[in-house]
Amino acid sequence: MSATASQRPSYEAVGRTTPTRNRDRASYDRDLVHAILDEGYVCHLGFVRDGAPVVLPTLYARAGERLYVHGSTGSRPLRAAGDGTEAPGLAVCLTVTHVDGLVLARSAFHHSANYRSVVVHGEARQVTDPQERTAALDALVNHVLPGRAADCRPADARELAATAVLALDLVEVSAKVRSGPPVDEPEDLSLPHWAGVLPVRSTRGEPVPADDLAGTVAAPAYLTAPRRPGR
Amino acid sequence: MSATASQRPSYEAVGRTTPTRNRDRASYDRDLVHAILDEGYVCHLGFVRDGAPVVLPTLYARAGERLYVHGSTGSRPLRAAGDGTEAPGLAVCLTVTHVDGLVLARSAFHHSANYRSVVVHGEARQVTDPQERTAALDALVNHVLPGRAADCRPADARELAATAVLALDLVEVSAKVRSGPPVDEPEDLSLPHWAGVLPVRSTRGEPVPADDLAGTVAAPAYLTAPRRPGR
Repeated sequence: MSATASQRPSYEAVGRTTPTRNRDRASYDRDLVHAILDEGYVCHLGFVRDGAPVVLPTLYARAGERLYVHGSTGSRPLRAAGDGTEAPGLAVCLTVTHVDGLVLARSAFHHSANYRSVVVHGEARQVTDPQERTAALDALVNHVLPGRAADCRPADARELAATAVLALDLVEVSAKVRSGPPVDEPEDLSLPHWAGVLPVRSTRGEPVPADDLAGTVAAPAYLTAPRRPGR
Repeated sequence: MSATASQRPSYEAVGRTTPTRNRDRASYDRDLVHAILDEGYVCHLGFVRDGAPVVLPTLYARAGERLYVHGSTGSRPLRAAGDGTEAPGLAVCLTVTHVDGLVLARSAFHHSANYRSVVVHGEARQVTDPQERTAALDALVNHVLPGRAADCRPADARELAATAVLALDLVEVSAKVRSGPPVDEPEDLSLPHWAGVLPVRSTRGEPVPADDLAGTVAAPAYLTAPRRPGR
């Protein structure tokens, strides 16, 4: 990304990132998009195979204005993507969603969910540059727990050869957010049904050490540190 | 679904529900598939638009061997689907994923996530039968909180006309599950890096009543009841 583009506070709204409904929920704010992406563990990666859609959950990481996913070199979507120069990349849609609450309205029609999602359209390309591959794999480990990449054995040559990394630039991207209480019809407000929000959140439990973990290895601080804001 | 099919304990493995890797994680067990589906709030619905994949988060519900999603009649995927008789349905891939834990291995390569996911391929069709539409909308409300559909105002004619409902039969369906500790290379076991699982779970907070909720409306029991097993 150029410095100019990365300094703009918003992504550009284009045809396929402009919603046809609930437009008030759409946002192109760069910081909001980054925060939603950084908070997730798993994205849903969509691609087309034999003319039909496929949606698979997979780990991902953000590095600046680029997302990375990885997998076995034997996996179908990764094998289908070229490096974007000699062979074309793979058309993908990458979506990350957080459910924040269940919204109960007096009417069935106005039931909803509070959520934050990001949808990225684009062409994912195989990462072939060794330096970018290493940085991407570090980012994937650090995305889950910041600091972890420096505290594990890096991939060796055999493992690197077995790992495919795809990159997707944050260009065609939009966020969608619904928050707050239910919105009922005025004539429904006096109905005898409870209305409000049941919050939902993702929490972490106590770390469970592997059975074969040596007693001399203490739990690292990053394991129980609170996720940083926006993570 | 025929009675025979619904009595089989497993779905049939077909071409696109047979994974090319991590085959030991795949399952076609009907009860497992149902439990994963019933526990989720949001699915990721994939379809193809202008040759490119689109993945959108949306609420859903299961009724027996059929899934329902709904939305505005103005929404693009719903508008694109016929009723499967006069006009063809919409080719979709519907995926539900639960992240259960972050798996930290001694090696970067063996980092993973514990998760349970279900992927459904098929042709979604518009539900046009009034009775099935009503039942589907009830299922969508009850999916979030069992019992809620009977404790809110049902959709009126105008709301029904504005709501599109898609049905997707559970035929081409598979689950994928990873659980348990990290699997490290034997020669890595003595490395001085913590290894184990950091559990992740979705929890519900205290209900937040709407500001305009009359003081005479008590919080219903279903609001704070523990989700039933598999939900």
